[in-house]
Amino acid sequence: MARWEPDSRGRLVQAALVLYAERGFENTTVAEIAARARLTERTFFRHFADKREVLFWGAAALEELLVSAVEAAPESDSPIEAITRALEATGPMFEERRDFARQRQRVIDASTELRERELIKLASLASALADALRRRGVAEPAATLTAEAGIAVFRVAFARWVSDSDSPGLRHFIRESLGELQTVTAGR
Amino acid sequence: MARWEPDSRGRLVQAALVLYAERGFENTTVAEIAARARLTERTFFRHFADKREVLFWGAAALEELLVSAVEAAPESDSPIEAITRALEATGPMFEERRDFARQRQRVIDASTELRERELIKLASLASALADALRRRGVAEPAATLTAEAGIAVFRVAFARWVSDSDSPGLRHFIRESLGELQTVTAGR
Repeated sequence: MARWEPDSRGRLVQAALVLYAERGFENTTVAEIAARARLTERTFFRHFADKREVLFWGAAALEELLVSAVEAAPESDSPIEAITRALEATGPMFEERRDFARQRQRVIDASTELRERELIKLASLASALADALRRRGVAEPAATLTAEAGIAVFRVAFARWVSDSDSPGLRHFIRESLGELQTVTAGR
Repeated sequence: MARWEPDSRGRLVQAALVLYAERGFENTTVAEIAARARLTERTFFRHFADKREVLFWGAAALEELLVSAVEAAPESDSPIEAITRALEATGPMFEERRDFARQRQRVIDASTELRERELIKLASLASALADALRRRGVAEPAATLTAEAGIAVFRVAFARWVSDSDSPGLRHFIRESLGELQTVTAGR
């Protein structure tokens, strides 16, 4: 029987990120991740369904955070204000695991399969945000357009935050990108 | 030797759409499509790489049309104007094959795999549009944000056009959705 190890989950994540970066996501096996973390494959599968989930397990929590922030936004908020407030609410969660976010992004960028999976995740977030707006009484197509615009802002802001080593913080980039979206859509 | 048949491509597309609608994309084989079109599998593979390409072969032409319309837009156009002009330029192409577009959309909507493929196609269009804007001298992140906003407008406009049996035309919905995007992003 394996003896109890503190933070086996964290060690698995770290081992996976190192291997994905070194040899590519496609060329890494669960057995190799477990070995590098000095754990068994069985322990890996207690934490993650497969090697992709190491990179995507946070998606459900992110969606929950965004949706509850939209639900909690003051009634007086316009749809885009409610969405921006929700995006800003993700700041602390990402700032806390900035190193993970950066390493993860490099792995995603290097793999077509993972880039596609990330796109699908973001589309699913947009769809959850549009649902949350509709529950606030926002009509279609305003709900969908606002949610899609919000996710576009988030993608741009996130890419800048992740690549900027001396970054002023994700929330700053979210506000800035929203301002830029407002400028470009107005046609100026 | 198979004798020459007029429009075997068109017959293959029609046979595929009927079968995808009847039994689902996943449960249809190339052999069945060919048989229904009274053609051989070999003929199918002269026209399409696989059964998915029957639904996605137009993507390259669509991208080319969009990109060249952005390139041809007057220099005085703002980025969002150039993108909207490009989206409007797709109108005739879609109006001409409206029945195909509708049948195709129903098939896409019924399959997770195809919905994901459609998302990836649209993301790739957004990326090509952002490239085209950068070649016009548009800086980042304005290029990416404008292209993403344009694709959001297109998705909403297309969904309305496809589902509206008494439709005023795709171009109408593009202008309308752009107006709505401008309203929601301005925060009104």
